[in-house]
Amino acid sequence: MKITPNMKISQFIEELGNAGVLGSGRVYRATNLLSNMIKDPEMNIFLSIAGPMVPGGMREIITDLIKGGYIQVIITSGANLTHDLLESFGGSHYRNYGFDDEKLHESGMGRIGDIYTKSEDFEVFENEITSIMEKIASENEIKSIQDFIYAIGTHITDENSIIKAAAENNVPIYAPGIIDSMLGLQLWMFNQSNNLCLDAVADMHQLSDIVFESKKVGAVILGGGLPKHYALASNLLKGGVDAAIQITMDRSETGSLGGAPLEEAKSWAKARAGSNLVTVIGDATVLFPLILAGALDMASENKLMGK
Amino acid sequence: MKITPNMKISQFIEELGNAGVLGSGRVYRATNLLSNMIKDPEMNIFLSIAGPMVPGGMREIITDLIKGGYIQVIITSGANLTHDLLESFGGSHYRNYGFDDEKLHESGMGRIGDIYTKSEDFEVFENEITSIMEKIASENEIKSIQDFIYAIGTHITDENSIIKAAAENNVPIYAPGIIDSMLGLQLWMFNQSNNLCLDAVADMHQLSDIVFESKKVGAVILGGGLPKHYALASNLLKGGVDAAIQITMDRSETGSLGGAPLEEAKSWAKARAGSNLVTVIGDATVLFPLILAGALDMASENKLMGK
Amino acid sequence: MKITPNMKISQFIEELGNAGVLGSGRVYRATNLLSNMIKDPEMNIFLSIAGPMVPGGMREIITDLIKGGYIQVIITSGANLTHDLLESFGGSHYRNYGFDDEKLHESGMGRIGDIYTKSEDFEVFENEITSIMEKIASENEIKSIQDFIYAIGTHITDENSIIKAAAENNVPIYAPGIIDSMLGLQLWMFNQSNNLCLDAVADMHQLSDIVFESKKVGAVILGGGLPKHYALASNLLKGGVDAAIQITMDRSETGSLGGAPLEEAKSWAKARAGSNLVTVIGDATVLFPLILAGALDMASENKLMGK
Amino acid sequence: MKITPNMKISQFIEELGNAGVLGSGRVYRATNLLSNMIKDPEMNIFLSIAGPMVPGGMREIITDLIKGGYIQVIITSGANLTHDLLESFGGSHYRNYGFDDEKLHESGMGRIGDIYTKSEDFEVFENEITSIMEKIASENEIKSIQDFIYAIGTHITDENSIIKAAAENNVPIYAPGIIDSMLGLQLWMFNQSNNLCLDAVADMHQLSDIVFESKKVGAVILGGGLPKHYALASNLLKGGVDAAIQITMDRSETGSLGGAPLEEAKSWAKARAGSNLVTVIGDATVLFPLILAGALDMASENKLMGK
Repeated sequence: MKITPNMKISQFIEELGNAGVLGSGRVYRATNLLSNMIKDPEMNIFLSIAGPMVPGGMREIITDLIKGGYIQVIITSGANLTHDLLESFGGSHYRNYGFDDEKLHESGMGRIGDIYTKSEDFEVFENEITSIMEKIASENEIKSIQDFIYAIGTHITDENSIIKAAAENNVPIYAPGIIDSMLGLQLWMFNQSNNLCLDAVADMHQLSDIVFESKKVGAVILGGGLPKHYALASNLLKGGVDAAIQITMDRSETGSLGGAPLEEAKSWAKARAGSNLVTVIGDATVLFPLILAGALDMASENKLMGK
Repeated sequence: MKITPNMKISQFIEELGNAGVLGSGRVYRATNLLSNMIKDPEMNIFLSIAGPMVPGGMREIITDLIKGGYIQVIITSGANLTHDLLESFGGSHYRNYGFDDEKLHESGMGRIGDIYTKSEDFEVFENEITSIMEKIASENEIKSIQDFIYAIGTHITDENSIIKAAAENNVPIYAPGIIDSMLGLQLWMFNQSNNLCLDAVADMHQLSDIVFESKKVGAVILGGGLPKHYALASNLLKGGVDAAIQITMDRSETGSLGGAPLEEAKSWAKARAGSNLVTVIGDATVLFPLILAGALDMASENKLMGK
Repeated sequence: MKITPNMKISQFIEELGNAGVLGSGRVYRATNLLSNMIKDPEMNIFLSIAGPMVPGGMREIITDLIKGGYIQVIITSGANLTHDLLESFGGSHYRNYGFDDEKLHESGMGRIGDIYTKSEDFEVFENEITSIMEKIASENEIKSIQDFIYAIGTHITDENSIIKAAAENNVPIYAPGIIDSMLGLQLWMFNQSNNLCLDAVADMHQLSDIVFESKKVGAVILGGGLPKHYALASNLLKGGVDAAIQITMDRSETGSLGGAPLEEAKSWAKARAGSNLVTVIGDATVLFPLILAGALDMASENKLMGK
Repeated sequence: MKITPNMKISQFIEELGNAGVLGSGRVYRATNLLSNMIKDPEMNIFLSIAGPMVPGGMREIITDLIKGGYIQVIITSGANLTHDLLESFGGSHYRNYGFDDEKLHESGMGRIGDIYTKSEDFEVFENEITSIMEKIASENEIKSIQDFIYAIGTHITDENSIIKAAAENNVPIYAPGIIDSMLGLQLWMFNQSNNLCLDAVADMHQLSDIVFESKKVGAVILGGGLPKHYALASNLLKGGVDAAIQITMDRSETGSLGGAPLEEAKSWAKARAGSNLVTVIGDATVLFPLILAGALDMASENKLMGK
């Protein structure tokens, strides 16, 4: 590898490819694969997002991927949706409030690593989302979790919102574990006096249709968790994804799905025999932006949008 | 530490306590805390189970904990429930079939680390669970995921089944991400021609009642994932758990909830100020049995059951 | 697995073996292998010790292994030797002084995770080791690092000392990176006005003799680092070790020797083709005592000492 | 963060800084600190290199850092020096030979993760280094390991060699664990019939002089291991380093020095109170090139060379 001042990301990725082994090799191959996934007009991309990607600064990247037509399906946690809404309603994520969790609680701060939230932002969130739920409960027929998230998206005005962008660009968002979040909690509290019943398995109707209608599916998996498994397992009925990238710090030795090498998915037909799979070990909040920047450059000559 | 032949677990744990630092100290403190949790007649224990604990050999341990009255609430993944049912219907988990995932798929094997399943066992599972769903759809009023799991439990005959033991001992099982499993998939397929609609947020009614009725709550958290968060977050409305143990290999640096130190939960009021929290870094399939064996010995003099 | 009150370690290990997969399987296989290594009268055992095993409470275990004739060679860091001497001279390791490292320094404390040392103990160490170096510089012909450690051992009176026990039981201790420790620093300061010159490569003469005279070599590797590599590489000239166990938290993906799976050693002839190798992922301060306790039980029926 | 096609590294690093939390924040702060270290005319930089950085493709980066006057001291393993020499003598590192270690051995390949070496290259290495040792044993007075490495450097012709560049630019290379490498092994074999005796602690004379003559010291620590400790501990006598960056995948929980947070060094006076310390969790073969590229850009306006 040769490192010089004033490098471009594309040059940098090429240097990683020259090394071509260990982490450098994995990042290079993931970049190359993501570029091919983007360029392939027949491939629908499922983006799986676990971990605090929105609080961690990835919100705009995801919204831009939706607006640019790069991704066709999103699978994430209720928490990432909650944090997207928190920002949509004027809240923010904060830094440098220390690590004394009892004191943080007293001063109305919640901590995620070195990221902080304020309870006053959550109060705004609660009022706003309750108001939106009142509207959508009356105007839409909502059966599935995806319906619910879509309907919320139609009431958001913040142009940087993932949920709004997804609604406007017909990118369905699945959040199978939505109940396990502040958004889920608000829905439950709303349902104390309303009846916005979401069928826990109803999403599979639409999601399986998307899978069957896709000539190919590529998965981009940030972190592990429920979203990783759902992204892969939803492709099981069709024989598995055709390509996948995962970026994770989870280990493989415990047998957890999050840390499992992508190859393991082949035994379950969640990835096709012969599919191109790259697992990158590292922090997705650094390595996904890097891989994406490199892939955009590689793909830029003949990128095809509007899949 | 002094290690001799013919040691008892209780002596061994004492030796870890004599060292008292690094991993030894953490395992000792977790054992001591679990013992206190078991002995406290006012404390309800929430057991959160992520990762392949049932395929990994923990099924009997969990069933025994239920039967013994040691745990009052279980939160787990659809996958662990699926594997409990797989064994209940005569299936098994296998070893030593190698690591060529494409070949494994061809020979009808699914792989979880070094654990193997057979597609023929899944075929039996599909038939049996469909038959059970037919029964419960007609006989019960099922609204929540917990209702659904309970109803299944009343139709299982295998005495080693977690789901059966839980149903018989009134230990509710929550699986907020149930759709993301073979059990969830079977429910969805069943619903193509039936109407067994589970409200995604309905579990919170019962779960919040349990939280409010518990004088104290202790959480025992195996792995991270959705179950960890749900176990802690469900206690938020009451100011957080009073004690918790987590055993995980997840790292803290990515900000994921799974790897977050338990202390962080205090900032969110998911753990009380002053609560006793021990995070152990390691493989739960080794360390939970060890900690449990030690805690049973510590607690044996004056254990109080039937909380 | 079945966990009951009042278990013995031997029962517990059997239960891990019944599970037989993931971490449980690895711990069981490592225990079984260590038992076989202990029982094999033709096998010399090289114990490689990296990380703060002496501060972490493993000192007595190692001393007992030497006294019991279980291990024939030790390879470790200068730091572990320093901490053995610190305790031999009346010093100790302390707990519960908090994590403000600037304050710790001001109050004369050094921190290793949650273990603390006192500068007053290091002052005693400096006086005592200087006094010992004065004696051995006059009385012995010291060429190698092992000679130096052995000579120190003949001047220690603490019966719990690893270095003393090793000297008395003819178990050579190798510390190829000795300079990188307080002991090495004291040697350097002593040499400002003396000439106790240790040939950096002289240990290989004796060590290679031991390797060639051993019918078989088994390696027990705690942590990674220099000691791991040295233990394996010293066996290269003879075609590699015949058996090995490693317990580590290092990852394999960075390509570091510490995290490399033991199998990789076969490509270098540091482990023989067909050798029995078990890598356990976890904290050696918990898992080595556990594996050792289990192996002592398994081996107890027909253990052969005095190899 | 905003990611667009055709980005420059400097823009990318700015985007990480905009996120500013979790891994992104750590990489940004490390880049900023490295830039400040490079720009500070009073700061000598100690580069500590553990793990297979030369086989992993970092050789040219390190050689360029030496030639550019960016680093003043190198501390590394015997293995990295061996691999530098292997390439200097015409050998190479190879890819894509599979993971069957017994077969690899049979076909004369050694494996380091997904990197391969050939025994024929090691044969050339042995001949060449023996020839060089014959020359330097006669022409130089060699007392310390650093002397030895320097003398080798004066006989290398490959312009990309780290050892040659270091010799030509008066950058001392310390390898306290040199015996634990093929280079150390060759030195030992050479000494069967020669007397090239290296004093194990002699390096400390020169190294402590450098420390005391440095107005400030900054440490750049790739991986953990012996080199990390040596880089920090050599600054102990003067109150510790003034700044440090570490990039590692080692965990902190085991108490190993490799995984210890840099802050811990403050308790030992290996880092000064108030020193700027950034620990980045990740693979150094990806993140060090990234951080370096960013730091070169940040520093380029007013970089001062020839410290």
